[in-house]
Amino acid sequence: MIETDILIIGAGPCGLFTVFEAGLLKLRCHLVDSLPQPGGQLTEIYPKKPIYDIPGFPSVLAGDLVEHLMDQARPFKPGFTLGERAETVEKDEEGNFILTTNKGTKHKAPVIAIAGGLGCFEPRKPPISNITDFEDKGVEYIIKDPEFYRGKRVVIAGGGDSALDWTIFLSNVASEVSLVHRRSSFRGHLDSVQKVMDMAESGKINLVTNAEVTGLNGDDQLSEVTITKQDHGEIVKKADHFVPLFGLSPKLGPLADWGLNISKNSIEVDTFDYSTNVEGIYAIGDINTYPGKLKLILCGFHEATLMVQSAFKRIYPDKNLVLKYTTVNGVNGF
Amino acid sequence: MIETDILIIGAGPCGLFTVFEAGLLKLRCHLVDSLPQPGGQLTEIYPKKPIYDIPGFPSVLAGDLVEHLMDQARPFKPGFTLGERAETVEKDEEGNFILTTNKGTKHKAPVIAIAGGLGCFEPRKPPISNITDFEDKGVEYIIKDPEFYRGKRVVIAGGGDSALDWTIFLSNVASEVSLVHRRSSFRGHLDSVQKVMDMAESGKINLVTNAEVTGLNGDDQLSEVTITKQDHGEIVKKADHFVPLFGLSPKLGPLADWGLNISKNSIEVDTFDYSTNVEGIYAIGDINTYPGKLKLILCGFHEATLMVQSAFKRIYPDKNLVLKYTTVNGVNGF
Ligand SMILES: Cc1cc2nc3c(=O)[nH]c(=O)nc-3n(C[C@H](O)[C@H](O)[C@H](O)COP(=O)(O)OP(=O)(O)OC[C@H]3O[C@@H](n4cnc5c(N)ncnc54)[C@H](O)[C@@H]3O)c2cc1C
Ligand SMILES: Cc1cc2nc3c(=O)[nH]c(=O)nc-3n(C[C@H](O)[C@H](O)[C@H](O)COP(=O)(O)OP(=O)(O)OC[C@H]3O[C@@H](n4cnc5c(N)ncnc54)[C@H](O)[C@@H]3O)c2cc1C
Repeated sequence: MIETDILIIGAGPCGLFTVFEAGLLKLRCHLVDSLPQPGGQLTEIYPKKPIYDIPGFPSVLAGDLVEHLMDQARPFKPGFTLGERAETVEKDEEGNFILTTNKGTKHKAPVIAIAGGLGCFEPRKPPISNITDFEDKGVEYIIKDPEFYRGKRVVIAGGGDSALDWTIFLSNVASEVSLVHRRSSFRGHLDSVQKVMDMAESGKINLVTNAEVTGLNGDDQLSEVTITKQDHGEIVKKADHFVPLFGLSPKLGPLADWGLNISKNSIEVDTFDYSTNVEGIYAIGDINTYPGKLKLILCGFHEATLMVQSAFKRIYPDKNLVLKYTTVNGVNGF
Repeated sequence: MIETDILIIGAGPCGLFTVFEAGLLKLRCHLVDSLPQPGGQLTEIYPKKPIYDIPGFPSVLAGDLVEHLMDQARPFKPGFTLGERAETVEKDEEGNFILTTNKGTKHKAPVIAIAGGLGCFEPRKPPISNITDFEDKGVEYIIKDPEFYRGKRVVIAGGGDSALDWTIFLSNVASEVSLVHRRSSFRGHLDSVQKVMDMAESGKINLVTNAEVTGLNGDDQLSEVTITKQDHGEIVKKADHFVPLFGLSPKLGPLADWGLNISKNSIEVDTFDYSTNVEGIYAIGDINTYPGKLKLILCGFHEATLMVQSAFKRIYPDKNLVLKYTTVNGVNGF
């Protein structure tokens, strides 16, 4: 059982800054994130892109901002449970929250701060009615180990870099690779697109454009896919694997079942302290909503700062909290 | 008449960041500040001290943060009226605000954002009942031109660097310099303190410690001061000038008379958009108050950002405002 003062769900920028602000009040934090690394959207979606509206930074790369926030939090020694999704929450006899992840890791804390952004990143699935029947039985949304596909007939779907790159890579591993894409143009890097075109021309792969995979068949294990071409009817193709690579999309996920007031996929909070309707659970950053809310990083920083004040009073109802300037008091780590 | 979209009172960190956020929405800003330079408390009180709680900066000198904020605002070409105090505000027929400074400069704008911090910095005055009678008639709170004191008898009061430094400097200009200080120890730099001690010993200046100036006398122009020594009675000293150097202290000042709801020296606002009770006037940063308010720089940044959204809707009621990420849209200056 991992114990802490504030259990933070989501290690995006707002979760990370919470560690610092809580630390100033001598509160310890532990972060849970379903991604394998901290940084949230900044690391997952746009690490190499500049952000221009972080106050005091005329320009900062998203990945660098995450590094700075990690440095700023470091004196307060945050704990991390990465690559695990916060799944269920209950209360013990003393009123502490017990949070369990999808991998069964348990955490205990008197306060939970949800900094879950847009939710957990999950693969976007194509709308094929029986697709869940074949998950892990021939359908994979992420390629973990390319060797898994050695000598197999693979159908990949998608039009971005990951579809293009895996098509190129697996053409030397699988016995047959087909790439199916809804349009005739691709969103990926120009040289990857060119390479795929060349490989299609030379017959090293099958390229099926203006088409979608619309059906899956098999007896327990996947054995064939149906490809529907725009205005050209259907093709049925033998296949051992179907790998739709349509990117990740965030889902509120398990948090939706915690009894929190939710509107428009966001958790309602009170701007006094960014508390939710469940006592002891706060929500900050992109995941919350209130009148005037803007889903911006700098707003989450403010929310984190007010929130930890309230968390402190909840944890130490008898202690007095006096605001001290960091310039005057310094940063006294753990 | 200076015209703009948002007239910002106070060029501290929150006023400066408002220029950037307003600029993203294509709104122009002009700043009025009673200090001769931008930066507010950061430049006036602690430019060389590090701040540790600006998100993304594990440490940043206050003066450097001001530079960064100026750089970030620069593409949006803010105007400045510096060294002038915003004094009165009225409305013209079209509903625009007309703001006049103590020097008579007039500004016109549909929206006013008060980012006045703790107020105008004004000299701290000693509690001598008739002191205002002698202001500019022998009593000065700021030394503008030391030549003004050539050949004169000067009494300086104070125990900090500016009292020490001017005592040293004027000892070569004035005919007689006395330094009066309430305690026997000084708050200034060690070498300045040593120098003043040496000069007192050699008779170049008069040093009167554990004492206060308690009375002023003169026929229109100042001619003598009364110095009260702790437990040692009074001395009356001939003097042409009395210069109390007790530092600057901020005063809400003229803003207190603008019909705004004020509590505890701060302007009450609605956290939806940081609007005051007067339509079209907003208040952000240290000067405002609301449930949960923390007087921190990072909170003012958030307030500025939400505020400009509301200002936009007030200025362009028919235009639609869609939040665009700077990472996606860039920063398009004027
Ligand atoms: C392309 C792009 C450009 C952008 N540009 C800007 C910009 O210029 N300026 C700006 O201010 N903002 C910008 N944003 C928005 C900005 O990225 C978000 O406001 C910010 O990431 C929100 O931070 P957060 O900490 O609230 O959440 P996130 O960064 O979304 O992090 C939330 C984390 O919580 C995790 N999580 C969620 N649910 C669970 C769960 N149940 N269990 C475990 N972990 C969970 C997620 O895996 C994620 O890592 C941009 C966004 C994008 C996509
Ligand atoms: C020693 C010290 C250390 C600090 N350390 C920290 C820290 O570590 N972290 C932190 O977040 N904060 C800290 N602060 C507080 C921080 O400085 C303030 O929160 C910040 O300055 C507020 O910014 P602002 O823009 O609201 O106002 P200010 O910086 O106060 O600027 C307001 C400006 O408005 C002007 N003004 C006011 N009235 C008028 C008028 N009528 N006409 C014209 N001009 C006017 C003033 O001259 C001033 O320049 C510290 C403060 C001090 C004194």
